[in-house]
Amino acid sequence: MTRFTLSSPLDMHLHLREGDMLELVAPLSARPFAGAVVMPNLVEPVNSRDKLVRYREAIYDAIGDELFIPWMTLFFRNYSEAELAEVKDDIIGVKLYPAGITTNSEAGVSNLHDIESTLTLMQEMHIPLLVHGESSGFVLDREKEFLEVYAQLAKAYPQLTIIMEHITTRDAVELLDQYENLYATITLHHLLITLNDVAGGLLAPHLFCKPIAKRPEDRDALAQAALSGHPKVMFGSDSAPHPVHKKECSGCAAGVFTAPLALPMLTGWFEQHGALDNLQDFISGNAQRIYKITPPEKIITLVKEPWQVPGKYGNVVPFAAGQELPWRMINQ
Amino acid sequence: MTRFTLSSPLDMHLHLREGDMLELVAPLSARPFAGAVVMPNLVEPVNSRDKLVRYREAIYDAIGDELFIPWMTLFFRNYSEAELAEVKDDIIGVKLYPAGITTNSEAGVSNLHDIESTLTLMQEMHIPLLVHGESSGFVLDREKEFLEVYAQLAKAYPQLTIIMEHITTRDAVELLDQYENLYATITLHHLLITLNDVAGGLLAPHLFCKPIAKRPEDRDALAQAALSGHPKVMFGSDSAPHPVHKKECSGCAAGVFTAPLALPMLTGWFEQHGALDNLQDFISGNAQRIYKITPPEKIITLVKEPWQVPGKYGNVVPFAAGQELPWRMINQ
Repeated sequence: MTRFTLSSPLDMHLHLREGDMLELVAPLSARPFAGAVVMPNLVEPVNSRDKLVRYREAIYDAIGDELFIPWMTLFFRNYSEAELAEVKDDIIGVKLYPAGITTNSEAGVSNLHDIESTLTLMQEMHIPLLVHGESSGFVLDREKEFLEVYAQLAKAYPQLTIIMEHITTRDAVELLDQYENLYATITLHHLLITLNDVAGGLLAPHLFCKPIAKRPEDRDALAQAALSGHPKVMFGSDSAPHPVHKKECSGCAAGVFTAPLALPMLTGWFEQHGALDNLQDFISGNAQRIYKITPPEKIITLVKEPWQVPGKYGNVVPFAAGQELPWRMINQ
Repeated sequence: MTRFTLSSPLDMHLHLREGDMLELVAPLSARPFAGAVVMPNLVEPVNSRDKLVRYREAIYDAIGDELFIPWMTLFFRNYSEAELAEVKDDIIGVKLYPAGITTNSEAGVSNLHDIESTLTLMQEMHIPLLVHGESSGFVLDREKEFLEVYAQLAKAYPQLTIIMEHITTRDAVELLDQYENLYATITLHHLLITLNDVAGGLLAPHLFCKPIAKRPEDRDALAQAALSGHPKVMFGSDSAPHPVHKKECSGCAAGVFTAPLALPMLTGWFEQHGALDNLQDFISGNAQRIYKITPPEKIITLVKEPWQVPGKYGNVVPFAAGQELPWRMINQ
């Protein structure tokens, strides 16, 4: 039986939600991954140490005994030096949402000039900045229009570690090589789909996410970066569950749920492209180096046996629901 | 009370469906319009005189006493001269679907070289060619990629009247002026929405159609053509009802239902842009001249009084459901 092992896989961009949804999805990330960067965009954003500590406790309650580190993030606002000092050891970074762009980001920031003091503090204190980089323009141009902001930030704060989250365009990939302190996460679904999959045949709400999937040449550039083991690129699923009634309705929420199938699917996809040797860096090595983190030792073993992605996990329809994959995780 | 009248409004691109859906939607077009060009893409395409006559009878049964002409179209296949001669007086044109692009178009044509004989016959017999002009490429490029085919057709058959149906791009508008025998229909929704409305916030299946709504500059070019009374541009709603369970689901059908609200909405929109004087040409005059048709005399009166678009017509959610419009039709 063909086996493949991954050492301490990490998901550097994850939505765990709250309440019943947290209970449902947290174990589905905690089983395959050794840790994940947890997004702070709850209905009430995680923007204080108190909220963060309560949220982290809820996550630990939900994952039970699994060996899994939830690396916490704060929702960006202007924080004082005292606030950042108090929370520094509890967070892996601060997540910046330009106002109104994605789920529960209405409280985001709309003018970068207003946030200079906090960015300066973060740079001094070595706290990474995680950014949902989209303008409020035409949906296909939003990431590209935001690249200028990334460039400004990278130049103005050269010691600040800046993560371009869930990049979706060739232009973003190219920007990576222009500024030393720019890094990126890439999702599973943006490696695989384009806008054609979302809206080229029937409209597919379960493939609808923000940033929206782009053109074939964009997907190809992302794929090239991931498959080649680009050292500034990390896997971040952006796995973002919504109950089915929020997806199959008249106004469908953005988010693709990939956490429980990400490792089998990435393994098959890297193998198919003859790049299996580079998956370990994409799934863990690069993140450890970029974030200077040491995850718990956790070996995930996959075997080359057909596995059908469930049609649903609870009330959530996953990516590739019902598809048969060539690899499965042991104990999946 | 401010009144506005339209003389014999025409919908030059309409989907009336079959069975219960036909019963529901046919009266909703027959009341405000004096006639419509009826699309032939039923589950079993209308591609013979027998099918056409049966379908026309079903339409007349559904519209009852309304003064309304359903101008019939045949679904393109290679027709013999005898077939076209037999059906000529029953049709306003033949509708060409490139294979696999839109609802029930799986039987469409994939190689234009194979259809030369029929196009030659149509040119000789003065039967217009109506075209769903999209390639099978990336969803946002499909119309643009097809423009070369329009140009080839226009050059190869200079006496053939060619209608570019439901155009959505600036490039298509510009092509209109390059070939004398090219004309176009424009929908209501493509005058009003862009891809941002479909997928820039929540995903909106009731705004999902083919061709998909494009960029703001495309919408602006369409608007300019319609508002200016461009003589080669006709209103064609492409009103395409689907039951709500086919729109709010995991794979949503393409089509926007606008027939019952098109006239009030167009009136308000032309008025808002100071172009009310040009609406008569867009809604009827241009079509009469291009197609050389004389519709029944039917005066539709609108009054400037608020009217709320219903949330549903039967099991169909219309465009702008629940929105209040400044104009209503008398007896609406």
